[in-house]
Amino acid sequence: MNINKRAIGPDWLAVDWGTTHLRIWLLDARGHILAEARDDSGMATLSSDQFYARFTRLAGPFLSPDKVIPVVACGMIGAKQGWHEAPYIAAPCAAPGLEEAQKIETRDERFSLYILPGVKQTHPADVMRGEETQIAGFLSQNPSFDGVLCLPGTHTKWVRISAEEIVSFQTFMTGEMFSLLSETSVLKHSIASSGWHKGAFLEALDAAISAPASIASKLFALRAETLLNDLSGAVARSRLSGFLIGLELSAARPYWLGQDIAIIGAEDLSIAYMDGLISQGVKPQSHHSVDMTLAGLTKAYQQIQGSMNAA
Amino acid sequence: MNINKRAIGPDWLAVDWGTTHLRIWLLDARGHILAEARDDSGMATLSSDQFYARFTRLAGPFLSPDKVIPVVACGMIGAKQGWHEAPYIAAPCAAPGLEEAQKIETRDERFSLYILPGVKQTHPADVMRGEETQIAGFLSQNPSFDGVLCLPGTHTKWVRISAEEIVSFQTFMTGEMFSLLSETSVLKHSIASSGWHKGAFLEALDAAISAPASIASKLFALRAETLLNDLSGAVARSRLSGFLIGLELSAARPYWLGQDIAIIGAEDLSIAYMDGLISQGVKPQSHHSVDMTLAGLTKAYQQIQGSMNAA
Repeated sequence: MNINKRAIGPDWLAVDWGTTHLRIWLLDARGHILAEARDDSGMATLSSDQFYARFTRLAGPFLSPDKVIPVVACGMIGAKQGWHEAPYIAAPCAAPGLEEAQKIETRDERFSLYILPGVKQTHPADVMRGEETQIAGFLSQNPSFDGVLCLPGTHTKWVRISAEEIVSFQTFMTGEMFSLLSETSVLKHSIASSGWHKGAFLEALDAAISAPASIASKLFALRAETLLNDLSGAVARSRLSGFLIGLELSAARPYWLGQDIAIIGAEDLSIAYMDGLISQGVKPQSHHSVDMTLAGLTKAYQQIQGSMNAA
Repeated sequence: MNINKRAIGPDWLAVDWGTTHLRIWLLDARGHILAEARDDSGMATLSSDQFYARFTRLAGPFLSPDKVIPVVACGMIGAKQGWHEAPYIAAPCAAPGLEEAQKIETRDERFSLYILPGVKQTHPADVMRGEETQIAGFLSQNPSFDGVLCLPGTHTKWVRISAEEIVSFQTFMTGEMFSLLSETSVLKHSIASSGWHKGAFLEALDAAISAPASIASKLFALRAETLLNDLSGAVARSRLSGFLIGLELSAARPYWLGQDIAIIGAEDLSIAYMDGLISQGVKPQSHHSVDMTLAGLTKAYQQIQGSMNAA
């Protein structure tokens, strides 16, 4: 648990509760961060009777018996196996805000809890939880954007946006494949945990885009080249990333070709996608995923305030 | 430890010691199995000071202080991190036999140990350990074979054979990818541990061969279809296998197109590859990997006997 409390005087709490982490921010009404806390209480590691205790353990310093603080949350907290299900809304749709949020009754009078739902798509079947809030944040700042969002991560999403709506989207398991192959497979002996060679990354990316099937034979070669030719762990890491992101860009071409593109992600991963897309002749803009999550949660909070003032 | 001792009267021991298992057979001079034992003492789970103890624990019932029994071994036992390194021989080459085997000195006078080496290829970099002995066994029974061997497994090998030599080969991580995705990734919630739908397998295989890059977007759809459309775990399992084997067949096409093909593998996996190749208009023969391993080890044993009788 890492608490960094900069001020007293709570306004509201923003919560991003995913599979592997819990992150809480104390913000003022305009969305300025006053304090934050995080730990590794991921939804996947907890049973349903632990959610309340884990949340109040981390949020405790921000809660007071004297007032009810609004809490606006997104992510796996709203999954069927989460704290309380916030059923998916169906694309095409606007990114969810207050109207789609579930207001959850808790027996704790120190806070009121709103959970934003994920978005589903029937054909082809697909789902997101968490990214829809980043999209809401992005659209609150770029309401006239018409194009494609790329949200790289464990499960990268490509999302078509038009007229402030999520038109369609597609998920790629690129990030999870990279983790499994580099940390769990036989390649773990060959791939460094850090280090980056942009040239090796772009060469591998280009090979995968030119001949997508060939990556099936190029993965084990990373191991063989370590054994026979002392391939460096950083080059192997960059090549693996290039093969996997290249395969994704090849399949996602109908999304990005000839479109305005914005990348929303963590810094290192966004740079890799940016470099890959630039090598294909595209010039995306880039935004940090945490900023967009906070912007999306802030927008929902302001709607809550608006509806309470109107009431 | 599972010992099934059917007879006393030792001739020699055949050993297949891989990453995840140790398997020992007691055989007579013609290669007939008299008894066998196996456990999960995989090379990957042991430190170097444990190899001797684990081997003699499992082989103990077959050893006698009254005579020295020859032990012929293949697999990761000969890796750099194995019991004793048997350095790779370089393709193109004949499948290794006695001449390439390492005779290992041990202080235990109950057995003499021969380890068969793996095979390496410099360009493109590739290695095998264990499959070369299956190939030796296959060629001892089919000396005039000219074509391609497919050895499906954790790391599937495609091997060009001509004039009783390994000409070239290529490794695909298809089996390991299937395990990681079905047991460790987010797809584990969607994929049954057993069950098979040949139609779903072939449809997915065909989709991957037609558009290899598209599988990057079809993997997560297995999860989404479970959540939204109650996709059955057995169908999801068959589709995942079809996507991955289809990607492999697409990349391995230069190996199998227009060639005589023999599959050497475990039964279930061989059937999947057989069905996949037949759907592409190819008709492979099929052999069990254990039979071929024993045939390869028997051939080396007979060479040892020949050289001892000649001496």
